Amino acid sequence: MARIVMKFGGTSVSNTDRIKNVACLVKAEVDLGNEVAVVVSAMSGTTDQLVVWTNAVAQMKGSSREYDVVVASGEQITVGLLALALQNLGVKAKSWLAWQIPFYTDCVHGNARIVRIDTSIIRKDFGEGKVAVVAGFQGIAPNKSITTLGRGGSDTSAVALAVSLEADRCDIYTDVEGVYTTDPHFITKARKIDFVAHEEMLELASQGAKVLHTRAVAVAALHGLPIQVLSSLDKKPGTSIVEEGELVEKQVVTAIAYSTDEAKVTLIGLTDCPGVVGTIFEALADADINVDMIVQSVSQSGNFVDLTFTVSSSNINLVCNVLNVLKKDLGYIDIVYNTMVCKISVVGVGMRSEPGVAKIMFRTLAECGINIQLISTSEIRISVLISSGYLKLALQALHTAYGLDANCKFIKSNN
Amino acid sequence: MARIVMKFGGTSVSNTDRIKNVACLVKAEVDLGNEVAVVVSAMSGTTDQLVVWTNAVAQMKGSSREYDVVVASGEQITVGLLALALQNLGVKAKSWLAWQIPFYTDCVHGNARIVRIDTSIIRKDFGEGKVAVVAGFQGIAPNKSITTLGRGGSDTSAVALAVSLEADRCDIYTDVEGVYTTDPHFITKARKIDFVAHEEMLELASQGAKVLHTRAVAVAALHGLPIQVLSSLDKKPGTSIVEEGELVEKQVVTAIAYSTDEAKVTLIGLTDCPGVVGTIFEALADADINVDMIVQSVSQSGNFVDLTFTVSSSNINLVCNVLNVLKKDLGYIDIVYNTMVCKISVVGVGMRSEPGVAKIMFRTLAECGINIQLISTSEIRISVLISSGYLKLALQALHTAYGLDANCKFIKSNN
Repeated sequence: MARIVMKFGGTSVSNTDRIKNVACLVKAEVDLGNEVAVVVSAMSGTTDQLVVWTNAVAQMKGSSREYDVVVASGEQITVGLLALALQNLGVKAKSWLAWQIPFYTDCVHGNARIVRIDTSIIRKDFGEGKVAVVAGFQGIAPNKSITTLGRGGSDTSAVALAVSLEADRCDIYTDVEGVYTTDPHFITKARKIDFVAHEEMLELASQGAKVLHTRAVAVAALHGLPIQVLSSLDKKPGTSIVEEGELVEKQVVTAIAYSTDEAKVTLIGLTDCPGVVGTIFEALADADINVDMIVQSVSQSGNFVDLTFTVSSSNINLVCNVLNVLKKDLGYIDIVYNTMVCKISVVGVGMRSEPGVAKIMFRTLAECGINIQLISTSEIRISVLISSGYLKLALQALHTAYGLDANCKFIKSNN
Repeated sequence: MARIVMKFGGTSVSNTDRIKNVACLVKAEVDLGNEVAVVVSAMSGTTDQLVVWTNAVAQMKGSSREYDVVVASGEQITVGLLALALQNLGVKAKSWLAWQIPFYTDCVHGNARIVRIDTSIIRKDFGEGKVAVVAGFQGIAPNKSITTLGRGGSDTSAVALAVSLEADRCDIYTDVEGVYTTDPHFITKARKIDFVAHEEMLELASQGAKVLHTRAVAVAALHGLPIQVLSSLDKKPGTSIVEEGELVEKQVVTAIAYSTDEAKVTLIGLTDCPGVVGTIFEALADADINVDMIVQSVSQSGNFVDLTFTVSSSNINLVCNVLNVLKKDLGYIDIVYNTMVCKISVVGVGMRSEPGVAKIMFRTLAECGINIQLISTSEIRISVLISSGYLKLALQALHTAYGLDANCKFIKSNN
């Protein structure tokens, strides 16, 4: 007997037939003698519609208490319907909203963080052979207001619940077969990955792979919780996300992620004295702007430096406003920016022990005639910023160069 | 300054433009210096859709804990959107779900009764100049499950909240201009009524008038709460429901209600001994069947009686099943029933002091050649059961006979 948390996304519960299908998948786990908690999202499209309505009634930016009240309603429908569908199959089941469990969060509406989950009700229901059907995405703040965890937050709900329940694993059902070596909608040679390490998945999710919410992977990594990513619509095995030590073969490069939501900003002719760079990034952080890649280079004149960094392209106007305010204090010569850039990241835990990964990347891109504008690295990742026009060419070439194409194996480290 | 509860039905909040319109109506009351709590229904059509989904995932009859979880979600959307729309107009507003207030009910899912409303949060918000936007239709059971009050239950939510808040009045906004002398969609000469007594409204609602939930009127009558019924879509004055003592002129007949959901059942040749009739109605009550008009008449043979009563036509099969089970014990000869009947009720508090109301009814119907099958009365109501085919003819003739046609006044009692 195992204790598992199953999570179903919006496309898996998009209509009543699919909800009945989900009930069958849950029943199969119950019939194996497992204790099961199920976390569900809203029907696909519902949350989008609710967001449209909130924008229609009020010219507001961002989230608020009332925004969360509206957008949290979609999950209430699906938990009730799934509990009914399970009861109809003879499975004992009960729905739970965040305030009933409760799922305690902080007060940050629209992007709340889970503080603690009281699992006593669900454990009691397990004792009575009941399936707990839990609303994802939502929480309850200390002042009893409804909160939401941000788009994609149901993944985090599921993983956090699995950790709190000391579950054996968390199965994330979605509309794709698992995690791919790169985006299969874009690169036809992409392959499904059987096993991936938590750390690799964390890099992939944070570098643009959309299959899992980054925060969900971070929580799973922190607690060593095994995750399976698999399709609710067919019965193929999916991708297992496991601790690095459990990987039998460590790929040097496991997968390639990309992001097109990038803008490169350069401050030209910045005075080269201590504290200047700190002032800039402090001001950007205060405006809630995430800065990603950062490079400082000495200007031709000698006494000045050029500072280049990347931000989300949707933030570019805000960034320019913040920097313009600082211009008098900082005394830089000019700001230039470019939003026609994209970031490609190759990720693999084998990189730690295998030199030459960067060399392959630079040679491959050079052979394609692609100029690298910025580089950043972690222990298991190399990211480059290139011109958007070369995205597909670069992905295809790198996918081949690192041996990720279907029916092809490349560098492996020893176990 | 007054303290008022405003209630908006599904058609008044059916899209974001209408919700913005409702926000303007609420702001107008706030600008007058009033303390305002608003009760809203789900967008029209939403609850129907949710019920369809519950039926699609499970072959179940009636309501359950999970049914209530699903159908209570519609009000969560409209309270959040209305609070946002009010904030957008510069009005301080906060949404409240039943569990947050709380709105305590019993455990009867799908048809719960309000036990107590804790108004402390709303009174505190009034003190801070805030409008409380409250989800109608829903409640919370002692075991913290979500309950619903039955279709049309938002009227009851609003009236119960108004009583608990010791409000000066409750304004029920709907898609018609008020309460009419009879159904204006059916009888073109129907007129809007300016004033109606609680007791009259209670008789009208329970005899088929659909403008207000019967339980809402009963609660208002019990506590002497003034109600206004008016349109959210135009600015005409509506109908005031007040205590009988406040009526300046008491109509002998204020309005005529009708119901087509009627079936007449006759048990022929029932043994005439004590306890038999009690056994029958006890069995029907145990099967949750409401019996309305009842007549017992001596059979031609002398030792037997015929028992006739009416039930909702949707219950007719269930009634026959219950009676068939009893046949051996009761020894009646036959059951006959007829669903091609309708009930017409004339209502007016002036009836108490004015004889001759029944005479007009019987004469008018006789002149139309309409046979009366059953009669029942209260102090302020006369109801007759007639063949369905004569419904419109009877309504038109009675509307004229009692002086209810537009631009026409008939019998008035002294003040």
